[in-house]
Amino acid sequence: MRLVGAILPGAGQVQVARLDDDGVRPVAEVSAFWSDAARWTALAAASPGDAVPAGSVRFVPPVPPTARVICVGLNYRAHAAEGSFAVPDHPTLFGRWTASLSVGGVPAPVPVDEAGLDWEGEVAAYVGAPLREVDADTARAAVLGYSTFNDLTARRAQKLTTQWTLGKNGDRTGPMGPIVTADEVGDLRDGLRVRTRVNGALVQDGDTRDMIFEVGEVLSLISRTLTVNPGDVVATGTPEGVGYVRTPPWLLGPGDVVEVDVDRLGVLRTPITGPSGS
Amino acid sequence: MRLVGAILPGAGQVQVARLDDDGVRPVAEVSAFWSDAARWTALAAASPGDAVPAGSVRFVPPVPPTARVICVGLNYRAHAAEGSFAVPDHPTLFGRWTASLSVGGVPAPVPVDEAGLDWEGEVAAYVGAPLREVDADTARAAVLGYSTFNDLTARRAQKLTTQWTLGKNGDRTGPMGPIVTADEVGDLRDGLRVRTRVNGALVQDGDTRDMIFEVGEVLSLISRTLTVNPGDVVATGTPEGVGYVRTPPWLLGPGDVVEVDVDRLGVLRTPITGPSGS
Repeated sequence: MRLVGAILPGAGQVQVARLDDDGVRPVAEVSAFWSDAARWTALAAASPGDAVPAGSVRFVPPVPPTARVICVGLNYRAHAAEGSFAVPDHPTLFGRWTASLSVGGVPAPVPVDEAGLDWEGEVAAYVGAPLREVDADTARAAVLGYSTFNDLTARRAQKLTTQWTLGKNGDRTGPMGPIVTADEVGDLRDGLRVRTRVNGALVQDGDTRDMIFEVGEVLSLISRTLTVNPGDVVATGTPEGVGYVRTPPWLLGPGDVVEVDVDRLGVLRTPITGPSGS
Repeated sequence: MRLVGAILPGAGQVQVARLDDDGVRPVAEVSAFWSDAARWTALAAASPGDAVPAGSVRFVPPVPPTARVICVGLNYRAHAAEGSFAVPDHPTLFGRWTASLSVGGVPAPVPVDEAGLDWEGEVAAYVGAPLREVDADTARAAVLGYSTFNDLTARRAQKLTTQWTLGKNGDRTGPMGPIVTADEVGDLRDGLRVRTRVNGALVQDGDTRDMIFEVGEVLSLISRTLTVNPGDVVATGTPEGVGYVRTPPWLLGPGDVVEVDVDRLGVLRTPITGPSGS
């Protein structure tokens, strides 16, 4: 089952909704959904209700406004190497605020001082239950589902200082695909191919089986410092093939289209614009 | 005028409320407040309404759930030096999610793998209007007010990798004092004394005039990568005197009480507990 965030015609609230080929079926208001995600998901599977045409709704990220998006940097050996980073002993974690998130099809603007945006195709995991001081198996079992994610990066801002936060939070630079429930995805350690294309050209071609720190282990570690809340997201890191390390560097500019294509999760398409959105 | 977040008896919504010696006067629901903060603040000043006894409300952070708390690291020369950091050329920015925030009087638990929490007394600035590609003067003029803040830090988690995010987001480790409106605070460059006390002993004694990057300059820089939203917060950095660099290191443990005391902003008191809250 696929789940999306949607604002229905004439409504203000964000709903988590089931996405089917014939339309969108609202499940629950987004904060209510995440307060009991397993039950709402089971209900949506058992009693789908009537479809609303997909063309009549506005798609938005399927997470509550309080969600943490916890990103894992340097989680593939070849990606760490291409950026001249050592393979870290622990997951390198940085954060996005929900204010930077968007969905497929929404244009991402290049911030004014940047030469472009860099692509980072990856898989995001959505946590369905509170996690506090849990082991990796418990944490992994609490993942409700996975989506495509593009951690579009303002490299200049990222590298201004030792801390990457600013360059990882540009407006609309965090597009998320629909959540595919975990039963249809399986275990990321068994391998999902992660491909990124720019204007149709393949630029990243990785596999989740090559992750250094798997999602259960990452969540277990996090849960020993803070309580992971339902609706929190782990962006599991990007494989090799980003643009800024190439010779010459290759960054996304206005008119480019970037796609993240992951086995079982679908294709996430993002057009790029200039700072003013054009 | 002082503004707080408050949940009134029998209510679920967070209100931004005026805090007076005789009680609390609700102004507006927190997201509505920040969508037009200048107008609501003027209204609260002109027509205060009836007070609710402070003892009957639950105080909570006065920011919307979507707020970014953008923290400036190494923003005082002597603090950069005590941690053996070079003085940076640009503001070192890292993030807190609202999920880590709390208010005065609420106990902060030491995460399970930490030897303690470290104190970082500072001043937080609350942004009252959207900021996109603005200069420092415009940004500074958009600050609605300031509060005390304690950026309580899990040093082990902070130093696990190059990125500080995890160690800066422990549960209830970001207590905020009441917002004091900018008209009663003036310009931080003119100097506010920032003191931190542990069980009554003075451990930090700095002055905001010694900041390397002032709040308008920091916000101006940020606004060139992302649109700063009303309700976003800049934690302006801590002066020298933190605990982990001492010989021997001094960290906060269960039973300790830490206070941040800033001229014109008041005293923010936080008791420390063990991981389970006791």
